[in-house]
Amino acid sequence: MKILTVTGYKGGVGKSVTAIHLATYFSEKGKTVLVDGDPNRTTLSWAARGKLPFTVADERQAMKMVASADYVVIDTPARPHSDDLKELAKGCELLVLPTAPDVLSLQPMLETARDLGEANYRALLTIVPPYPSKEGEQMREDLRRGGVPVFQTMIRRTSGFPKAALAGVSIRDIDDARARAAWNDYLSLGAEIMEILK
Amino acid sequence: MKILTVTGYKGGVGKSVTAIHLATYFSEKGKTVLVDGDPNRTTLSWAARGKLPFTVADERQAMKMVASADYVVIDTPARPHSDDLKELAKGCELLVLPTAPDVLSLQPMLETARDLGEANYRALLTIVPPYPSKEGEQMREDLRRGGVPVFQTMIRRTSGFPKAALAGVSIRDIDDARARAAWNDYLSLGAEIMEILK
Repeated sequence: MKILTVTGYKGGVGKSVTAIHLATYFSEKGKTVLVDGDPNRTTLSWAARGKLPFTVADERQAMKMVASADYVVIDTPARPHSDDLKELAKGCELLVLPTAPDVLSLQPMLETARDLGEANYRALLTIVPPYPSKEGEQMREDLRRGGVPVFQTMIRRTSGFPKAALAGVSIRDIDDARARAAWNDYLSLGAEIMEILK
Repeated sequence: MKILTVTGYKGGVGKSVTAIHLATYFSEKGKTVLVDGDPNRTTLSWAARGKLPFTVADERQAMKMVASADYVVIDTPARPHSDDLKELAKGCELLVLPTAPDVLSLQPMLETARDLGEANYRALLTIVPPYPSKEGEQMREDLRRGGVPVFQTMIRRTSGFPKAALAGVSIRDIDDARARAAWNDYLSLGAEIMEILK
């Protein structure tokens, strides 16, 4: 069983969107369970509105539901404390920390990373404005210079995500050009993670 | 994997003591992990002070640590809401609800049980005063009349439990007559649970 935990030091950075789409990616590789550990119940509500290609488990039933899974993706509440992040990192193969590319997020992300030390984690740039904006690349570079391990893949901003959330589906299952581009971002992220899990 | 969840609608009723000693019982049957899901971290601290015959897992690492377990005992925070208890019951083979034999606990316990309906749970009388007191038997009878499924075994009050907690051991590993009597109570409870799990 491979466990991925998605968390962050603050909310509103595409944490649940990332958990949903990583679980979609892994559902094509093996039995996948997404554990909704966020009191907002974002992913459980998403699943209830439509159809997702994997099981979403209430955290109160998680132990039972993950017993036979190949891949487990855990969506946690935002965790402002780096001690908590360290404990989370010990409980999974990889901790994924989504962050938006804005200057207000840079400093706390650098501090988080410094506190995490040698833990198994990667920052993920999300809600990245489209070309010709260079905000994503710039933030990725700033994080790397600050010693933060960052995924090469960045998740571009698209109106497809709220649309998918409302329909209760994965963006993989929405048939328009922008949604396909967004799904390609997650395919690319999934491939990076598969390399790390090897 | 068999999962037992120990919870209650209020604290101070021997919840963590029960989780520790059920885990001790099951550690003689197979690989056992106790998951400390209580923010008080009572069982993690207990384990850190001494030596217990099973692993105690921080809830943030639980998924990873239970993957290969035969028996999982989950110690949860006290849950005053019966909706929460219902969700917990769905995530385990058996929900164990410790309660002290006092008149203040009777009414809420009867209400809890009414709300739980057909869920897989048993009430457990704990902190029962020694003979010639009849408080334990009386409460067990009152609960049964109220339609609450109750374990036949009752856990007697003894100073051995705080002693074991301070030493960081199970009461099984304390060598005096009262501690042996207390451990016998848990042996008897464990046998009842094995029957239910069959």
